[in-house]
This record gives sequence, C-alpha cells and structure tokens, in this order.
Amino acid sequence: MEHIYLDYGSTAFPKAPGVGQAMADYIDQVGVNIGRGGYEAAYHTAEVVLDTRERLCRLFGWNRPESVIFTSGVTASLNILLKGFLRSGDRVAATSMEHNAVLRPLAQLAQSGVEVEIISCERDGSLPPERLEEALRRRPRALVMTHASNVCGTLLPAEEAAALCRRYGVRMILDCAQTGGVFPVDMLGWGVDALAFAGHKGLLGPQGIGGFLITGEMAMEVTPLLAGGTGSQSHLETMPDFLPDRFEAGTLNLPGIFGLRAALDYVERQGIHTLRQRSIARTDQLLRGLARIRDIRVVGRPGTEGRGAVVSVDFLHLDNAQAAYELENRWGIETRCGLHCAPKAHQTLGTYPQGTVRFTPGHATTEEEIDRAVSAIEEIAKEREGFTLHF
Amino acid sequence: MEHIYLDYGSTAFPKAPGVGQAMADYIDQVGVNIGRGGYEAAYHTAEVVLDTRERLCRLFGWNRPESVIFTSGVTASLNILLKGFLRSGDRVAATSMEHNAVLRPLAQLAQSGVEVEIISCERDGSLPPERLEEALRRRPRALVMTHASNVCGTLLPAEEAAALCRRYGVRMILDCAQTGGVFPVDMLGWGVDALAFAGHKGLLGPQGIGGFLITGEMAMEVTPLLAGGTGSQSHLETMPDFLPDRFEAGTLNLPGIFGLRAALDYVERQGIHTLRQRSIARTDQLLRGLARIRDIRVVGRPGTEGRGAVVSVDFLHLDNAQAAYELENRWGIETRCGLHCAPKAHQTLGTYPQGTVRFTPGHATTEEEIDRAVSAIEEIAKEREGFTLHF
Repeated sequence: MEHIYLDYGSTAFPKAPGVGQAMADYIDQVGVNIGRGGYEAAYHTAEVVLDTRERLCRLFGWNRPESVIFTSGVTASLNILLKGFLRSGDRVAATSMEHNAVLRPLAQLAQSGVEVEIISCERDGSLPPERLEEALRRRPRALVMTHASNVCGTLLPAEEAAALCRRYGVRMILDCAQTGGVFPVDMLGWGVDALAFAGHKGLLGPQGIGGFLITGEMAMEVTPLLAGGTGSQSHLETMPDFLPDRFEAGTLNLPGIFGLRAALDYVERQGIHTLRQRSIARTDQLLRGLARIRDIRVVGRPGTEGRGAVVSVDFLHLDNAQAAYELENRWGIETRCGLHCAPKAHQTLGTYPQGTVRFTPGHATTEEEIDRAVSAIEEIAKEREGFTLHF
Repeated sequence: MEHIYLDYGSTAFPKAPGVGQAMADYIDQVGVNIGRGGYEAAYHTAEVVLDTRERLCRLFGWNRPESVIFTSGVTASLNILLKGFLRSGDRVAATSMEHNAVLRPLAQLAQSGVEVEIISCERDGSLPPERLEEALRRRPRALVMTHASNVCGTLLPAEEAAALCRRYGVRMILDCAQTGGVFPVDMLGWGVDALAFAGHKGLLGPQGIGGFLITGEMAMEVTPLLAGGTGSQSHLETMPDFLPDRFEAGTLNLPGIFGLRAALDYVERQGIHTLRQRSIARTDQLLRGLARIRDIRVVGRPGTEGRGAVVSVDFLHLDNAQAAYELENRWGIETRCGLHCAPKAHQTLGTYPQGTVRFTPGHATTEEEIDRAVSAIEEIAKEREGFTLHF
C-alpha cells in the first residue's frame, strides 16, 4: 500500500533535497568541531555555521547573525527564553493556543512564583487584538505567543502583538514552530524581542537542530539555562556575555547545522511564497472536500484565509483514534490524532478531551493524495452514520 | 599538506564507518517522528530508538533502556542532572578536574544557594580515595565527578567513588564525556546514580546527540529542566513522571540517534578493549617520544597507566598558542591549545594561566602520524632553546 504522508505539522517529509547528503558529507569529510581546535578544517566549519546564521537572519528579517542561537529545537529554545527571563514575582501572558512547549515551562514557572495569565482565543482559534491589548495593558513582563496553532492552523496576529508589546513595554517571545519557512516573519520590522524556530518543520531540515533569534538587549536579561564550555573565556566560571557564546554551551550539532543549511538553501531558492502556495492549495482542496461530508466537524477558520496548512477533524460518530487507525490501515494515510500537545487549544476549539485527527499537508503533497484522503474520510464517516458515540 | 588529526578529545574523526550513511538514510527514507504519528513508519523508527537505548545499556552496564535519556549532548545532560537535582541549601562535591560543563552550572547553582565543595586533585590529576572520602563524610547531597580529565587524561577512581557514595548516602553523577566507548563503565555494578555521555567522542557518533542514564529512584528526584510536548499525557501541564518521557520534551534528534546507533554497532563489533588499545598504544608512543625532548613539560601521569589517550604539553620557551599554530601550519598537525574549558584542572596541573597544547590520538591514529608529531614538537622546542618566555 502506498503511503500518504499528512503529518508535516509533526515533521516535514520529504526533507529538502540535499539535506541527507550534506549531513553525510559533513560526517564523512569534515567531522571536526569549531571554536575548539585552531586548525584549518575548524575554520571552514565555522564559516558554514556563520553562513547558516546569516541565512536564518534573512529568513526571519533580522540583521545580527551572532544573535542567532542554535539549540536542539524549538522546545529547548522556549525553555531557555522563558526560564532564563522570568523570575519569581514576574507576570507573563500567553494565549490559549500555546503548545505544551510553552504551557509546561510556564506551569513550572508558576510553581516558582511567576504569575501566568492565559488569554482565551475564539472558538476558531483566532485572537482579537483588543483582547490581547487588554492583557498587555496590565503590563506583564513578557508575552509568549505562537504564530500559528499546531492544532487548527489559525494564524495569530504576530505583527499587531509586537506593536502592542512595544507600546506597553512588554517583551515579546514569538513561537514560530509552525510558521518558520512558511509565512513571512519580520523580526526587526515588527519589533519582536525573541523568536524560536524548529529546523525540521517548515524549514525542511533535520530533527535535532533549531534555535532562537534574540535582540542584544533582551539577551542580557536572559540567564543561560544551559551553561558549560564555550571555547571562549574558559578561565571564567560564568558564561561569556557576548553572543552567540552566552547561549551555546557545549559542542554544536554540526551535522544538523550542515543539514539545515542545505534546507535553507532550498527554501531560499524556491521562495517561501512558492512553498506556502503548494501546501495552502492542498489545504484549500482538503477543506472544500471535507465541506461536503456530514458527521464530521472541521475546526478552526472556515477557509485558508488566516490559516496555515493544518486541518483538524472531529469525527462525530467515531472515536478519533479509531478513525486515524483506519485511515492508516485501510488507505495508508498518515495523520496525527489526539491532543497534539496542546490541551488548551483543544479546549478553546471545543474538541477537548476527545481531540481531533489532524491532517497537515506540505510542500510535496499532491492533488491526488488529497483526493484520496477526502474519499477515505467520507467513507469512514458514512460507515458510521447513525452510530452514536458514548464516552 | 596532509593533516594529522590529534584532537579526538574534542570530537572523533573519522567517525565510525556507516554513521553518515545511517543519518542520510534516515533523512531520505524514513524522516518521520515517533510518539507523535500513529503510523507504521513511526513504529519502525521507535524500534530503532529503543534498540539504540538497549545498546547504550550494554555499553554502560545498565539494565533499563527506558531510563536512557537522549539529549543534545553531555553538557545538556549535566545541566539537566545538576540543576534538576540540587536545590538551595544543598551541598554538592566536585573535583578540581571538572570541565566547565560541570563548573559553570555549579557556579550558577552557587548563586542560588547551593554550597559547592571542590575537592583538589593531585598535581598529576589523580584523586586519592581517602581525600574523596573526607569530602563525602560531610555528606553532600551529590558528588559530580569526571571519569577522566579532558586536559591530561588522568582517570579518576569512579568505581571507588561510587562505593563511597553508597556508604555515605551521596548521589553519584559520573561525567563520561572522555571515557564512554573507551573505558569499561558498570553503572549497575558500581552503583552510579546517573551517568552523562557524549555521542561524538569515544562513541564515534555524530555531534548533537548525547544523553544520560539514570536510576528510577534518582529520576524522580530530578525536576525536568526542559519541559514541553512529549506526545504522552498531553492533557497534563506537568511532565509525565515515567521514563524516558519525563526528560525528553520536544522532537528527538532522530538523524543523530540513527547515526549513533551505527556508531554503537561498530563499537560493539570492534570491542571497546580493541578500540582503546589502538589509541593507548599511540599515546604510549607519544609519551615515550616526548620524554626525550627538553624544554617541554608533559603534564599528568608519567605513562599510560591510569590514563586515557590525552597528552598535554606545556612549551617552556614558547607561547603554547604559537606552538599549536606552528604545528598546524608547518606540519598539518591539528591539536587544541589553551585551557580546554577546564580552568581548575590547569590550576591543579600547574599550567594556569598559560594552558597547554593538547594531543589526543584516537582509534584511527597511525604510528607514522605520532612519529611525525614527535619530530615536529622536537623541532619547535629546539628552535626556541635558550629563549625565555615573558608573560
């Protein structure tokens, strides 16, 4: 049976062409570290790393490659930003669409005296700017906000939020897990203080590499969560206060960076507009197909306007896990069911505790694949027509 | 000019055969995540991850694959263990041979009320067990100790330390950055509570993947430093209390794990005894060669007894950075000079603040390469005979 991969929201597959090769080439032909050895190969590697930081600057509208910090992924980035910045007595605002990569660190911070305010979003996942402003008027020390929901794809008003944060003197931390490499982000133009990204989703690179971009000003307010050797100021027991060293303790994930660089090269050459059009066209096709099907509820916004390539479906007469199982076993359709590590988002969307079956098309999804997915969903829903679900 | 790579202490190169290929195959042919999607490819990937945990159990003498935790490397592992375990008012003991991956987190913890006791090692880097016992008799909550110095290779008495920790009710955290895949470690037999490892040094795998092994008992005493989505118990705002999920927030570095598995397969087939013999034979050759040269000081123990494959040299009539530069530029010999992220170790060895030039042979270093290194060192030292260094 052929596979139809509709789980790009978890990780992109296929990755950009050349990613695997770039990683293997690094491992087989380069191999060495930077900032540790003083030899030629180490300098060549350092140049590749700097080039990758520069590409990320271009992608996210930023101008200082040294303040592009590499981490193991967006979760580590958010932990570093939140736990390094917030202290007992601080207040932080977040939205109800946040992922557990934000909610769980915030729950830990709440235990140590940080006051956490969750701003409720609408039933379609959207956030009215006036509701956001109401929260910011109470001047929390930071706002942490996802750029787009990983459950329903709804975009949150990042640009307006950044402007409001500027007005009220609130630090803005933007979670670009679902939008990096897909939607335009202008960190400098919008006035975002810190931005976390994953390498393996919209950027089409490998798992294990991600990072964050941070202004020099905010960087000095963040205590490094991970401390260790940096190959710089080694006589000091404190982390260096310059970037990127302040936040890059230990050996960098160099094969990951080489892979990410190959992915960024592809993304730049294709253009994020073109890549986005591909997945959004398939999302549009999917939404139109689903609109004809009874006994399911599609959550989020009605069309592709203000939405990323994420479609969550609640099967009304069938357990969603069973539906996902059948989609995989009878049609080879790979999805993700459950709560998608975002329980408050599901509460907001009215799909808690049952969750949804999430379909996330990507850059390589074909029209035919979506046709087959729509037919499969229709068939499953029809078979159970008249059944009632008991929880 | 040919290159002579003598910086295995920083990272192994070449990696084990098959590592690059395994990573590229994962990226090109598998690509998906685990614990997120419920489809076949995700289950296959999960099996590979479990197999890698089992291989690490065999290597480190442990019996519970679920308590093998993957992180971005040994630095992240040590931060997670130290910062998750120690609280204000606790006391922790460490040795003067520790790397900044231990010293810098401890310096941060000292700021938040943890009392840090540094046990001084001897001038050859060794630690007399009675001195260790003296510190443990004061019953710190934990001992964190490197298994071997990254500056001079001296082995620390890990097995005796674990026994003493048992006797005095102290948790033992062992840093195996320099010994994993090289020296035998028996976590269960010795009674170590937690052990941190790097994937890219003695294990011959890629950078960006490492981890720790931890007993179930200690795991419950460690607050997760990195919280986020685990694909499990997603409705809870707290991290799951079962392993490995408790410490594995966010997407795993799967290409890194596939690469590490290929490396572990090679290490198992060769046997760590055989691999160690190769690098130790070259270390012995290097030490014998250096013994004939005047105007240098070789730090650490006199021979290969009680020592890993690390040789640090202090050039008495030449700046060590200049020596490293000449070795690279005139002979293609790649080393690492400076403080090696271990300032207290250099203080212990009497090479602070000037540091040393560190030569670390590895599994692929040849006899001829060491011969050439010895000749080069001799030539450099001779050229400067009679010069006096002014700092």
